[in-house]
Amino acid sequence: MAKGDDNVVFIGKKGIMSYVLAVVTQFNNGEDEVIIKARGKAINRAVDVAEVVKQRFVQAANTTDIKISTEEIEGDEGIVKVSAIEITLDKG
Amino acid sequence: MAKGDDNVVFIGKKGIMSYVLAVVTQFNNGEDEVIIKARGKAINRAVDVAEVVKQRFVQAANTTDIKISTEEIEGDEGIVKVSAIEITLDKG
Repeated sequence: MAKGDDNVVFIGKKGIMSYVLAVVTQFNNGEDEVIIKARGKAINRAVDVAEVVKQRFVQAANTTDIKISTEEIEGDEGIVKVSAIEITLDKG
Repeated sequence: MAKGDDNVVFIGKKGIMSYVLAVVTQFNNGEDEVIIKARGKAINRAVDVAEVVKQRFVQAANTTDIKISTEEIEGDEGIVKVSAIEITLDKG
């Protein structure tokens, strides 16, 4: 894994708690900051993950940065644009 | 409508373009700032709305603030917690 990607959690199709656990594990392993990334329909689940981490597991954690953007993805029918989000959580 | 709510667009179940139009209309009516709000599964669509406004309609617009939170909503089966987002778009 490229350096600097260690503290990134990509939100896919698993249950919310899988990703919550991934974030909490990163903090427990000494990361001060974890970046939660998601695209398209996974975006609302990225927000759920950040909120569950803050409310139930790492109460001192803060959302220090949230970025939204448009990414171009090459699909079967050419290039499609999808929205993306990056939520930075600080251990606090 | 309460003062200060004029420049808020709530994302519901309509198509993305309805909300894009609502945001663009607010800017055309002289608002410098429009706040896009959504909860739960509408969150990814709020991000889509902000991105489409920026990319296709008001190229100078910037995302100046994004907040996420947890809201408590009273439903049929008691209080449920849902994630929420507020995206502030500045006309630029």
